[in-house]
Amino acid sequence: MTSSVSAGGPRAATIATIATEVGVSVATVSKVLNGRADVAPETRARVEASLERHRYRRRTRRPAEATSQIHLVFHEFDSAWAMAIIRGVEEAAAAAGVELVLTQMGGRHRPSDTWLDLIVGRQPLGVLLVQCGLTSAQQEKLRRQRVPFVAVDTDSATPASVPTVGSNNWNGGLIAARHLLELGHRRIAVISGPEELLCSRARVAGFSSAHDEAGLAMDPGLVRHGTFYLNAGYEYGMELLRLPEPPTAIFAGSDAQAIGVLRAARHLGLDLPGDLSVVGYDNLPVAEWMEPPLTTVHQPLHDMAGTATRMLLDLAAGVEVPTSRIDLGTELVVRASTAPPRSAR
Amino acid sequence: MTSSVSAGGPRAATIATIATEVGVSVATVSKVLNGRADVAPETRARVEASLERHRYRRRTRRPAEATSQIHLVFHEFDSAWAMAIIRGVEEAAAAAGVELVLTQMGGRHRPSDTWLDLIVGRQPLGVLLVQCGLTSAQQEKLRRQRVPFVAVDTDSATPASVPTVGSNNWNGGLIAARHLLELGHRRIAVISGPEELLCSRARVAGFSSAHDEAGLAMDPGLVRHGTFYLNAGYEYGMELLRLPEPPTAIFAGSDAQAIGVLRAARHLGLDLPGDLSVVGYDNLPVAEWMEPPLTTVHQPLHDMAGTATRMLLDLAAGVEVPTSRIDLGTELVVRASTAPPRSAR
Repeated sequence: MTSSVSAGGPRAATIATIATEVGVSVATVSKVLNGRADVAPETRARVEASLERHRYRRRTRRPAEATSQIHLVFHEFDSAWAMAIIRGVEEAAAAAGVELVLTQMGGRHRPSDTWLDLIVGRQPLGVLLVQCGLTSAQQEKLRRQRVPFVAVDTDSATPASVPTVGSNNWNGGLIAARHLLELGHRRIAVISGPEELLCSRARVAGFSSAHDEAGLAMDPGLVRHGTFYLNAGYEYGMELLRLPEPPTAIFAGSDAQAIGVLRAARHLGLDLPGDLSVVGYDNLPVAEWMEPPLTTVHQPLHDMAGTATRMLLDLAAGVEVPTSRIDLGTELVVRASTAPPRSAR
Repeated sequence: MTSSVSAGGPRAATIATIATEVGVSVATVSKVLNGRADVAPETRARVEASLERHRYRRRTRRPAEATSQIHLVFHEFDSAWAMAIIRGVEEAAAAAGVELVLTQMGGRHRPSDTWLDLIVGRQPLGVLLVQCGLTSAQQEKLRRQRVPFVAVDTDSATPASVPTVGSNNWNGGLIAARHLLELGHRRIAVISGPEELLCSRARVAGFSSAHDEAGLAMDPGLVRHGTFYLNAGYEYGMELLRLPEPPTAIFAGSDAQAIGVLRAARHLGLDLPGDLSVVGYDNLPVAEWMEPPLTTVHQPLHDMAGTATRMLLDLAAGVEVPTSRIDLGTELVVRASTAPPRSAR
């Protein structure tokens, strides 16, 4: 799990150890470490494998002209959600006296190679990626150039080769469902995020597990997948609430979705939370502004961003990072949008 | 008005012209232009005054190591409001192939000298300040080092010596009041921002002007000043709605304040917009999410940020900037939180 994280093991291997083990010259190992191109791919792979096996600590002394900047790269800025992450990164970076360079990929999920070359040329302290992956070749390039990188990944989908900070989506689904089941709800719908995202499936799985532990069956006919935006909540909310046997509670995939559900419920003349309980996800400031204020799963975006930044700065300083993935806990924030169903009162 | 903006006049002055006019050597003028310290303050001031009189276009060729980064400095990040500005700057910067370095002053209204020295040492293309002033000495330092700066200022309070992009606050108050007066409201309250901010007073003045043009008197007893946050809207909303003769409409200083007013109205059992019309300010995404969706004054934060960025990049490129202050227009976005008062129906 720590393969990508350069870290000193209990007994630090030397270049000579590696050279002997792989059966190449010390110069060849050195070339691999320095990112030189004149090494056969097969040899490079064997040397890299040995370096990783020995958890060889690559020297992090950087050229004198290295900047004290980190690059924060977003898939796409998206209102208050992105702001929570930017704030978390900025605070952690400022505390370390490091500057923050901000980029968005304009919706692309991977940076272009041109962009990556530009970044590498800048010699940043490190690169922090938000909802934004790197190909294996791109990862390899950054490693060769000794530019550490860390991902903030709410989707739980980043490969183990990238040090990542996420949050526990499965637990988020679990605690939302437990809360509604404890209130007495038995017919609970889920509108989750897009089905192709692991986080969406993890939350539904956690939701299902809470039903299992309560000895109750979950109705698969009450599960929907949509975008994280308000409209998806509104449209699926209308659809679910117009079922012959509508749910008494809906667990949404984001606060925006939940707000769409509130709107649908109002358009149908339902009393909130009397006729319908709604649970959101994220706990953005807007959740508290709603009427009724939203019960929601707190996704610790600010802390995730701060943790990822400190991890990145540790890597940049050559400090050992114990694991390649950290998931921070999700917590339920109970406000006024949830109540016992009428049938239970 | 254009004194701080280095711009070529109709006939460009030479260093020799300036030297002759001031009665110093060409070398002295050159020292001033190059930001050298060994010039007597009084002499420097006279040379600078002459340079400005002649609108001397300082050469903007920059040292080879100049970066292609601009620094965006916030007084403080503040949720969706700041996000709109960051997006606007990032898009304009990315379109010009320029990187964005992001800083917040953590609530301080002026950057420290230490920070400024650090920035100047970085040789950025320019500095963009949001709700964040510079002392005259700080402005002077940036000018000497040929680091252009532009302010995004929603408060209309930035001195003319700083190129600034804002929005028309007075007009914002005017169009909000006109809308409510046209609906038939005659008893309209205003909750504006802090009284010490020019923008708050400008909006109230515009609001008052709309009354004047309608030949109606505005009740000074219905004006409040508070922070831009939800709580201020809630507290003043409760106070105003509990008056013996309560207003039939409230114009708030921000969308967050307006949401606080909606909450107060609901807690008092009022029907919206039947019993009370509410107008917000800013037009952040949340305005549309409310129930009822908020009628609000659109403050073009995204465009203000983009305009300021392009202005900064123009200054960095030595392009003439025609004026030191631009106010973009505010527009009313009518949604469902406003309606005729019961008395007019």
